[in-house]
Amino acid sequence: MARKIIVIGSGAAGMTAASTARSSSKDSIIDVFTEDGHVSYSPCAIPFVIEGKIKDFGSIVMHTPEWYGKERNIAVHIRTKITSVDVDAKKVTASDGTKHDYDSLILATGGNVLFPPIEGTKLPGVYPVRFISDGKAILDALPNVKSAVVVGAGVIGLEMAVALRKAGKDVTVVEMFKQTIPRIFDEDMAKMVQDHCESLGIKFLMGDPCGSIGGDGKVEKVVVGGKDVPCQMVIMATGVRANLELPNLMGLDIGALGAVRVSATMQPYRKGRLLKDVYIAGDVVMCESSVAPGPTMSQLGSSAVRQGRVAGLNAAGDYAIHPGVASPFISAIGDIQVGGAGLSKGLAEYYGIKVVEGKARGSTRARYYPGGKPLIVKVLADASNGKIIGGQVVAEEDVNGRINWLSAVITKGVTVGEFLSDMENAYCPPTSMVRDTVFDAMEDLKSKL
Amino acid sequence: MARKIIVIGSGAAGMTAASTARSSSKDSIIDVFTEDGHVSYSPCAIPFVIEGKIKDFGSIVMHTPEWYGKERNIAVHIRTKITSVDVDAKKVTASDGTKHDYDSLILATGGNVLFPPIEGTKLPGVYPVRFISDGKAILDALPNVKSAVVVGAGVIGLEMAVALRKAGKDVTVVEMFKQTIPRIFDEDMAKMVQDHCESLGIKFLMGDPCGSIGGDGKVEKVVVGGKDVPCQMVIMATGVRANLELPNLMGLDIGALGAVRVSATMQPYRKGRLLKDVYIAGDVVMCESSVAPGPTMSQLGSSAVRQGRVAGLNAAGDYAIHPGVASPFISAIGDIQVGGAGLSKGLAEYYGIKVVEGKARGSTRARYYPGGKPLIVKVLADASNGKIIGGQVVAEEDVNGRINWLSAVITKGVTVGEFLSDMENAYCPPTSMVRDTVFDAMEDLKSKL
Repeated sequence: MARKIIVIGSGAAGMTAASTARSSSKDSIIDVFTEDGHVSYSPCAIPFVIEGKIKDFGSIVMHTPEWYGKERNIAVHIRTKITSVDVDAKKVTASDGTKHDYDSLILATGGNVLFPPIEGTKLPGVYPVRFISDGKAILDALPNVKSAVVVGAGVIGLEMAVALRKAGKDVTVVEMFKQTIPRIFDEDMAKMVQDHCESLGIKFLMGDPCGSIGGDGKVEKVVVGGKDVPCQMVIMATGVRANLELPNLMGLDIGALGAVRVSATMQPYRKGRLLKDVYIAGDVVMCESSVAPGPTMSQLGSSAVRQGRVAGLNAAGDYAIHPGVASPFISAIGDIQVGGAGLSKGLAEYYGIKVVEGKARGSTRARYYPGGKPLIVKVLADASNGKIIGGQVVAEEDVNGRINWLSAVITKGVTVGEFLSDMENAYCPPTSMVRDTVFDAMEDLKSKL
Repeated sequence: MARKIIVIGSGAAGMTAASTARSSSKDSIIDVFTEDGHVSYSPCAIPFVIEGKIKDFGSIVMHTPEWYGKERNIAVHIRTKITSVDVDAKKVTASDGTKHDYDSLILATGGNVLFPPIEGTKLPGVYPVRFISDGKAILDALPNVKSAVVVGAGVIGLEMAVALRKAGKDVTVVEMFKQTIPRIFDEDMAKMVQDHCESLGIKFLMGDPCGSIGGDGKVEKVVVGGKDVPCQMVIMATGVRANLELPNLMGLDIGALGAVRVSATMQPYRKGRLLKDVYIAGDVVMCESSVAPGPTMSQLGSSAVRQGRVAGLNAAGDYAIHPGVASPFISAIGDIQVGGAGLSKGLAEYYGIKVVEGKARGSTRARYYPGGKPLIVKVLADASNGKIIGGQVVAEEDVNGRINWLSAVITKGVTVGEFLSDMENAYCPPTSMVRDTVFDAMEDLKSKL
């Protein structure tokens, strides 16, 4: 008999799970339920629509519900909230009162932007950057904005700051930590990113949290360190927290990081026991790190896709595992690209790992080849065993491939010595230096081990 | 007492060896002898000078002999041939009659372009592409050339064909194999390269060797398959053979591939025994493959640097090894970049490996992000164990990082299944797709395993 698969959530994790289940199981019946009005789009694209690099929000929607029905034989139910799940009866109830049986259930309920518990976050003019509706609301409001404050100097915050600055706004970024891209980037590398943003005219207030948002019926200021910053728009780029509404209703075990605990097969637990026939993926889960000795969050679109694939395969009766994450990330901030993988120095130290750092400056092409861009590579190793545990790259181009390369060697537990003796790089003057700057950074690190 | 290190050869291997020895051993006395008039330049840059992308040959010389003397305390003796080496007395004799003692000797005598044994290769108008003097001679001759023939459709041949075509010449490439980039690229991928070159107006004569070169005192034609191709210039891009003059004089063991056999420490053998205090690196050696079950040649600038580093460290009394090569390469041919690592299908089959192929077409950016370029990725695995043994990429940009990434997983013996479960990619719409095309190629491969 055909297997009934229900997916809750239509983001990267949910739609990948649905599509993968379909590839693996031609005759299963697949239904996707989502509260959103759109499916299959990337929230990461929203700042670039606002910046005007992408022409409109329609472009970022890869496929419509109709496309999924026609091309993939997947029924997508938009604006339909699942209000309860009975895991014993294997049945979900939708907001319209309908009930649906399943053989396999995939939860991909994602996350929400965490608003800090401060005054004024409900004032008109305060926006998260999560859904297309958020992006549209920001674009609609822009003509009446002279000054904007971005709360949070993570990559989404900085991308939004650039977008608003390019739209001619006076932009201030407020960050409670003393550096941009805290937690996943090191201070020295983060400084270059802040310098670049400042060169675009973006202002920073670092080391103090946003104390409150004030205004009479609408946003008029934020208060930071007792000082008023007048503004007509506040962007909340304060991080994403797992959406636990349904997991809590279902009694799923929640891990220490405030997200759903999962097995390598992407199954949740209930009272310590694996929950049969239920799979879960994306921003809502806490997963294993392939480099740190503890669980981690990997709230990246690419992680959601990878986890959704595993959930989809297993839900369809196939078998796949998700062993852990090095969480490679990249961001395009103004004219530079910023990427990392594995642990930052701060995170490594949090785990009690003694870190050795190596750094090098090179070029994206042979030094004499016109158009090459400065390339800064930083690598981190565990001093106790020489294993590469982190890599960070800043350059105007060609960051992505280096991050994937570094992520691979971090995942494989390659040591700095092994990297230097075993690894190679391709070379042609228009595309690379004869010895990639990653090697120079490793050599610098090795000299300090 | 200070160690005396002599390096013979001033290419990538020789100068890297000298510089690495210097970094490792501050007080050693280092002398480099070279027949060339220039040191420290990349022959790979020559086609791009001829194409006009690099402004002149002066630019590609990274450092002068004087610079090495002043900055690195390395004495470089240009236009000085070493005519003999006495490995028992540990002494070399130069063409000027001087004799020089050494504690460690590094041979980096490189290779020469192999001219096929046909008539006419000595006619004026026939050029290899190896030394700056070759490049200058080609540039000087260009104004009197209407039609040129490039013999050999490897990457240097194709880069030269593009350079000559961009200079307005009528260009024909002659290749004895039926595909471009034979041996290291697969036919289907090579076809795209040929198509691109043809779109630039380059003609191809495939599947027949160049039979002869004819002309009265200078080049007037090449004869291919009994047919005359009129031309005033012939570029010999027919591959590089190890320069064995000195190795033969020294009685070094020559391997089956016509190059010097080496240990992992980059030491040559004599009558089967490791030759003490002698190291050798670059185009003159035959080394281990990290993927194939037999020795290989890796005549790449990046391989020369990697081997030179190991030779230099060992010569200076340090210890390093060169375990093997996956030989990642890249070439910029017209508007496209072409790269590979590990084995091609043909080479794998030569070694008796049953190959499974996977292929995917994607984009270098999110599909909706303006300016993304089509990206074609092919991966090969050993059918017996699922290990990834080769990767090939063609795109207008972002090939280099993917090749280094693929090279790393090939070197580490990662299987297709492990790649799909363990590896990750960074994502941001302006720089990548949420799931890199390399994964799609692996997925395609897995479905056929």
